[in-house]
Amino acid sequence: MIIDIHGHYTTAPGQLQAFRDAQLAALASGGFSPLMSPISDDDLRESVEANQLRVLRERGGDVMIFSPKASGMEHHVADADTATAWARASNDLVHRIAELYPTTFAPVAQLPQTPAGNIDGVVTEIRRTVDELGFVGVNLNPDPSGTWAGRPITDESWFPVYEALEELDAPAMVHVSTACNPNFHTLGAHYLNADVSVFVQLLQSDLFERFPALRLVIPHGGGAVPYHWGRFRGLAMRNGWQDPADLWRNVFLDTAVYHQPGIDLLLDVVPADNVLFASEMLGAVRGADPATGIEWDDTLRYLEAASLSDADRAKVMSENALRVYPGLAARLGR
Amino acid sequence: MIIDIHGHYTTAPGQLQAFRDAQLAALASGGFSPLMSPISDDDLRESVEANQLRVLRERGGDVMIFSPKASGMEHHVADADTATAWARASNDLVHRIAELYPTTFAPVAQLPQTPAGNIDGVVTEIRRTVDELGFVGVNLNPDPSGTWAGRPITDESWFPVYEALEELDAPAMVHVSTACNPNFHTLGAHYLNADVSVFVQLLQSDLFERFPALRLVIPHGGGAVPYHWGRFRGLAMRNGWQDPADLWRNVFLDTAVYHQPGIDLLLDVVPADNVLFASEMLGAVRGADPATGIEWDDTLRYLEAASLSDADRAKVMSENALRVYPGLAARLGR
Repeated sequence: MIIDIHGHYTTAPGQLQAFRDAQLAALASGGFSPLMSPISDDDLRESVEANQLRVLRERGGDVMIFSPKASGMEHHVADADTATAWARASNDLVHRIAELYPTTFAPVAQLPQTPAGNIDGVVTEIRRTVDELGFVGVNLNPDPSGTWAGRPITDESWFPVYEALEELDAPAMVHVSTACNPNFHTLGAHYLNADVSVFVQLLQSDLFERFPALRLVIPHGGGAVPYHWGRFRGLAMRNGWQDPADLWRNVFLDTAVYHQPGIDLLLDVVPADNVLFASEMLGAVRGADPATGIEWDDTLRYLEAASLSDADRAKVMSENALRVYPGLAARLGR
Repeated sequence: MIIDIHGHYTTAPGQLQAFRDAQLAALASGGFSPLMSPISDDDLRESVEANQLRVLRERGGDVMIFSPKASGMEHHVADADTATAWARASNDLVHRIAELYPTTFAPVAQLPQTPAGNIDGVVTEIRRTVDELGFVGVNLNPDPSGTWAGRPITDESWFPVYEALEELDAPAMVHVSTACNPNFHTLGAHYLNADVSVFVQLLQSDLFERFPALRLVIPHGGGAVPYHWGRFRGLAMRNGWQDPADLWRNVFLDTAVYHQPGIDLLLDVVPADNVLFASEMLGAVRGADPATGIEWDDTLRYLEAASLSDADRAKVMSENALRVYPGLAARLGR
């Protein structure tokens, strides 16, 4: 079985974005909150069958962990009610997709974060999606302001989120949304910078002593983490931080790295128990490398070409995902 | 010949920091600007002979491009006169070191940047150091605010800096200073994030069409750039940006990457013409890997173990440095 743990619903029917536009317009004008126009099951099917589902099947994948479009989460919008309504609308669509394709798509939730936190609302949405609707995890934005105006994810203000995730035995992918700073291109710089920043925040803290069962997935192959593994080990020793390898008890990286040398490095540096197959599709990068004809985000091809034992390959392709996302194992009857 | 292009004067005599402390105290109290206490040539010699010079020689290096301590530049302090006096004091010490060891140390300047720019002062210090004192390049901070409050380095407000560098045929290393945001550990996250952010800023712009002779060195092996090379190629194609490989006409990466797999990836992905040997010592990471006994920043060891032709090795070890830093070639009579 091949499980892609990082797919985004970037192809939702236009009603979703129309709802968002109306929501932001109402916020600006002080008008009433909008309702979303109905979307039929056929429209939902079409939106994935031509896109994520087609590509997943063409490439030989079986299951995709599926969450709302990351750059569209827009947690920088300060109003908590708006954030809650937007997260619910986005999550409900992902939930319907997962109900239509229960053995293929497993839903992961957008959280109604705001720059001020909205932690109560976040915990409520975690409980609604994971506990009531069977979501297998959540996407947690370490920078809801989009300008890094908030506190590191190791600050105690975040602890209610981790308490809920531990209690529900669900992991979080740590995933930023749109950058609100012209220095950081969202997909090119902000996503990768966030991965590095969060890893170092964790390295400096004792968060996992307090939350030993918490599991965090850092996407995009961990940003620069495997490439600079020696730097992190050396910094940790010099500064008296924990050994970076100790983080592998709780931290996992995905394989959204779009060329063979990068995947090879990832697998060389990070234990096979901590690497989860992912494409991030349809995501930041679309189309094929003209030099090879391989689609950039067809990371399965890179993994197939990588030097991996059969046992390690099975871990990366599915076993780790079933362990990190026990809700997925339950959904699939494993 | 082996040229290390990234050394910092992190071991300056205590008078330098005392001057800085007095300067900041004067700024806070509105008092008079301090003068720096005299430092003897013997004290200067001692400060490097026990440190950078010893390590360089022990490892078999010949020349080090040497600049003031990067995290100490502190461009976030807003007062332009303070920034100018601090840059001059720091640069004058580096200049004296280079005069004491003219065939070993080649100076690179700290610039008196401020969050508001202080571009006239910056250009004045570029001319003073490069044109009058024989500095071979400068360190340009893409985030003088320390909070990324300024404009990308491709904004026209930066152009006078590039005009001066082009005219003087001197390169800039793009190097941030202390982060003023608790989300970003300075040495662990901020440095690497800056490298990525700047690379993507350049990728999105036509800066080098306007300044075809400008040469920028991105340190720390380019942050995450080689690891995510496929992502940048794919993003560039999707967004209609230039081919990332086109940047290799003007952009160079150093080898401050502290483990073998990282160095191997760097050399695999980036043309040998664009990689410059560097240790960043005495820098972010000190001490040795207990697993191998190799000092983290002894990047020469990783390069010796890497698969490189003799011709490419000569480029990385010295030829590229002499080409990118023509002032260095002139100093060495090459």
